[in-house]
Amino acid sequence: MIVDQASVGIAITKLMPFPLLAAAEEGSSQDNGPIILASVLLSLVAIYIASKVGGELCSRINLPPVLGELVGGVVIGVSVLGVLVFPEAGATAEDSLIITFIEQTTDLDPNSAEAVFEAQTEVITVLSEIGVIILLFEIGLESDLKELLQVGPQAAAVAITGVIAPFVAGTGGLYYGFGVPAVPAIFAGAALTATSIGITAKVLAELGRLNSKEGQIIIGAAVIDDVLGIIILAVVASLIKTGNIEITNILYLVISAAAFLVGTILLGRLITPYLVGMVNAMRTRGELLVTGLVFAFALAYIATVIELEAILGAFAAGLVLGETEKRKELEEQVVSVADVLVPVFFVCVGARTDLGVLNPAVPSNREGLILAAFLILVAIIGKGIAGYTIIGRGDLNKLAIGIGMVPRGEVGLVFAGVGSASGALSPSTEAAIIVMVIITTFLAPPFLRLLFPEAPETETETSKQEGT
Amino acid sequence: MIVDQASVGIAITKLMPFPLLAAAEEGSSQDNGPIILASVLLSLVAIYIASKVGGELCSRINLPPVLGELVGGVVIGVSVLGVLVFPEAGATAEDSLIITFIEQTTDLDPNSAEAVFEAQTEVITVLSEIGVIILLFEIGLESDLKELLQVGPQAAAVAITGVIAPFVAGTGGLYYGFGVPAVPAIFAGAALTATSIGITAKVLAELGRLNSKEGQIIIGAAVIDDVLGIIILAVVASLIKTGNIEITNILYLVISAAAFLVGTILLGRLITPYLVGMVNAMRTRGELLVTGLVFAFALAYIATVIELEAILGAFAAGLVLGETEKRKELEEQVVSVADVLVPVFFVCVGARTDLGVLNPAVPSNREGLILAAFLILVAIIGKGIAGYTIIGRGDLNKLAIGIGMVPRGEVGLVFAGVGSASGALSPSTEAAIIVMVIITTFLAPPFLRLLFPEAPETETETSKQEGT
Repeated sequence: MIVDQASVGIAITKLMPFPLLAAAEEGSSQDNGPIILASVLLSLVAIYIASKVGGELCSRINLPPVLGELVGGVVIGVSVLGVLVFPEAGATAEDSLIITFIEQTTDLDPNSAEAVFEAQTEVITVLSEIGVIILLFEIGLESDLKELLQVGPQAAAVAITGVIAPFVAGTGGLYYGFGVPAVPAIFAGAALTATSIGITAKVLAELGRLNSKEGQIIIGAAVIDDVLGIIILAVVASLIKTGNIEITNILYLVISAAAFLVGTILLGRLITPYLVGMVNAMRTRGELLVTGLVFAFALAYIATVIELEAILGAFAAGLVLGETEKRKELEEQVVSVADVLVPVFFVCVGARTDLGVLNPAVPSNREGLILAAFLILVAIIGKGIAGYTIIGRGDLNKLAIGIGMVPRGEVGLVFAGVGSASGALSPSTEAAIIVMVIITTFLAPPFLRLLFPEAPETETETSKQEGT
Repeated sequence: MIVDQASVGIAITKLMPFPLLAAAEEGSSQDNGPIILASVLLSLVAIYIASKVGGELCSRINLPPVLGELVGGVVIGVSVLGVLVFPEAGATAEDSLIITFIEQTTDLDPNSAEAVFEAQTEVITVLSEIGVIILLFEIGLESDLKELLQVGPQAAAVAITGVIAPFVAGTGGLYYGFGVPAVPAIFAGAALTATSIGITAKVLAELGRLNSKEGQIIIGAAVIDDVLGIIILAVVASLIKTGNIEITNILYLVISAAAFLVGTILLGRLITPYLVGMVNAMRTRGELLVTGLVFAFALAYIATVIELEAILGAFAAGLVLGETEKRKELEEQVVSVADVLVPVFFVCVGARTDLGVLNPAVPSNREGLILAAFLILVAIIGKGIAGYTIIGRGDLNKLAIGIGMVPRGEVGLVFAGVGSASGALSPSTEAAIIVMVIITTFLAPPFLRLLFPEAPETETETSKQEGT
C-alpha cells in the first residue's frame, strides 16, 4: 500500500499533522509530531526485539539474560548495525538506520531529519533513564530493609575495600609501571572504583539471589559504592579543574548523601502509613501503582537536586514501600512496567558501547589495549578480593560478593566521559578505561552465574514467573 | 539540605553530568541531561497527582474518573496553574511552573531553560501519545472481534449518520443562519464530525459497558468515524489549499484505510498462532507483554506511515491478539502499563485546553461563544440521533449510543488547529470550534454515566479490580 506514496502523501501530511500533537498548531516546529512518534515506536520495536533475541539466546546457553540485552544493544547500536545511535557520540541523523528507514517510508523532509533524530534520541534516553529508575525501585521493593541494615557493616567493608584496592593499585600501576602522568592515572584509578548497581542487581534478580545474604551484601555495598563514586568523581574532577580539592563540595556531598538516605528511610517510615491509608481509600484504577511511582519519582527528583543520582531516590522509595503491607501487591504491579521499560535501559547501554576501541588492527588502539589489559586485571582482582574483608562468616560465598561488584557499566563510562571532556585523559587512557568498562560489564554476569551455580530451581522459576 | 546549593553546586554539576547520559560526553548539548530527566519526573508527579485527585473526586460524585483526569489536567495546565504547558500553544520556559521550580531548586542556567523546556514537553508529549496507543491496545484486547464484526453494519450506520447529520446542519446553519463564509463554514462542519474514541472508550470501560452490545457498536462506530474523520480532514484541507478536491488523495486514503483494517485482521489471524508459539517457547521475563507491544507498536507505525492514525494500528493489534488464548494473561499485564501511561494522555488533553476562549468578559470572545452555542447544539443532536438509525432492536439504548459519539476530544482540536494554520478560519470561528470541542468532551462522560445507570455492580467492580 506504500506504492506511490511519496507523491500522493506530501500534500496530505502537510495538512494533516498528528491529531494529538496538533491541538494548537501555531508554530511549524511541531509538524514532525507524527514522525517523531513513529521514530520512537520504531526504536522501541528494535529495542524489544534486540533485548528478547539476546536475552533468550543467553538464557539458552545458561547465561544471565541481561547480558543478552547488553549484547543485543551492541548489535543494534553504534558498533554494528547502527539502528540505534545517539548524538552525544557524534552520530547524526544519517548514521541512524531508524531515521533512514523513516525517510524511506514517510515523506520526512531531509532538513527535518536532524530535528527528528534529536527528539527521538532524547525521548529514548529519558525512557531508558526511567527504566533504570523503575529497576532500582523494583530492587528496593524486593530488598529487605532490616536485612540490609543488618548487613550494613559488612556491605560498608566490601564497598570501601572495593574502592580503595582498585584505586590504589590502578593509579600506582599506571603511574609507576606505565609512566602515565599523575592526573590521568588518578582519573583511571577513580574509574576503577565504580560499580554498576543496575547490572549487578538485575543479574542477582535473574538468578533468584537478590534476597540471599550475599545478594543483600552486594546491593548494600553497591549503593554505598554509588555514593562513594559520586564523591570520588567530584574530588577528582575538582582536582583536574582547579588543581586542588574543594573541601566544601566534598562535605556537602557526604552530608547530603547521608542525610538523604537516612532521612528518606526515617521520614519514609512516618509517611508510608498515611500513603497506605490513602491508597486504601482510593477507588480508581491504578491507585497503588501510581501512588508508589509518585513517591519514587519525587524522591528521585530530590536525589537529583542534591547532586546525587535519581536511581538512589528510587531505590530508597522502594525500600521504604517494601516495608508496608502493600509490598507484594505493588511488586506484582511494578513487574509489567519494569518489563516494558528496563530493557530500554540495558539495550541503550549496549547500543552506546563503541566496540571500535577494541580493534587491535587499528594501531592507535594498541597502546590503549595494553593499558586496558592492566586495568581489567586490577578491576577484577580489586573488587574480587573485597568480599574477603568480611571477617568470619565462612558460610558466605565471598568470591561471589566481590565479583558482584565487578561490572562498571554506565557509571564507569561517566568517568571516561568526564575525563575526556576535561581534557585530562590522553586518547589511549580514555580508550583503556572504556575497554575496561566494557569487559568488566560483559564478563561479570557469566562469572556471577558460575559462582552461584546451585541456585534452587524454585527461586529461578519465581523470577521468570514474575513476568508471566 | 538545599541551602547554599547554588554556590556549592555549580562546580560539581558542570563536571558531573548524569551518568546515564554522559557516557560519551563530547558535545555540550547534553549537559542538561540530569535536569531534563528531573523535569520529566516532576511533570509525571504533577500529572499523576492531578489525575488521581481529579479521578477520585469524580468517582465520589458518581462521575466517570476520566472526566476528573481531564479537569485535573485543566487545573495544572495553561488555563489555571500553568504547571504543565506546551510550546505549540506559544508557551515558553517562563510560563512553565515546572521549569521555574527547577530553576529555583537546581543550578539550571536560564539560557538552557528553553532547551530543557522543549525537551521536557517533547518527552511528555510522546509519553501521552504512547499512553493513548496503550489505551487503544487495551480496548482492542477487551473488545470481541466477532461481536464487533457482527455489529459492523449497525456501527457503520451510526458512524455515517453521525458524520453527515452534524456536517450538513453545522455547515448549513453557519452559512445561511450566521453568514459565515463557505470555506470556514465547511471547516467548522467538518470539525463536528469527529469522535474522540479514547475518551468514549475509557468511559465505557469505567462503566463496565465496553462489552455490552451498545459498547461494541459505539467502539465500532468510533473506529469507522476516526477513519472517516481522516478522510474528511484531507478533503477539507485540500479544498482550502488548492480550491478543489484531489481525488487521488482521497482514493488513496480510503483504500489504504480499508486495506489496513482488513489486512491486519486477516494477516493477524495467520500470524498470531506463530506469535503465541514463540511466546510459549520463551523463557525470559515479560515475554508475552513485550511481544504484544512489539506487535502493537509495529502496527501503529505502519498505520502512521500510510497516513492513518497510530491508535488505529494499536487497536487492530489488540483486537487480533484478543482472539488468542493469551488474551486474559496479556490483558492483566497491560493493566499496569496502562495505569502508568494512560493518565498522561488525559491530563495532557486537559492541560492543553485553553479555557480563555470561554470567558465572556472578553468582548472578542462573544461572537465565538454565540457561534459555539449553535455548534454545541448541532454537535450533541447530530450525534445523539445517530443511534436511532439502527433499525429495530428496541432492546438497545439508542440514545446512549449516540451520546457515546459526542466527545470530539483531541480529534476535534486537530480541525481547529489545521484550520487556524491554513488561515481559513476567523478567530471567532476557531474559538467557537474549540469551545464546542471542550464542552462536548467534558459533557459526554457525565451524560453517558446517566444513560447507563443500571450498570451491574459486579461489572463496575471488575473495572476497578483490574487495577488492584
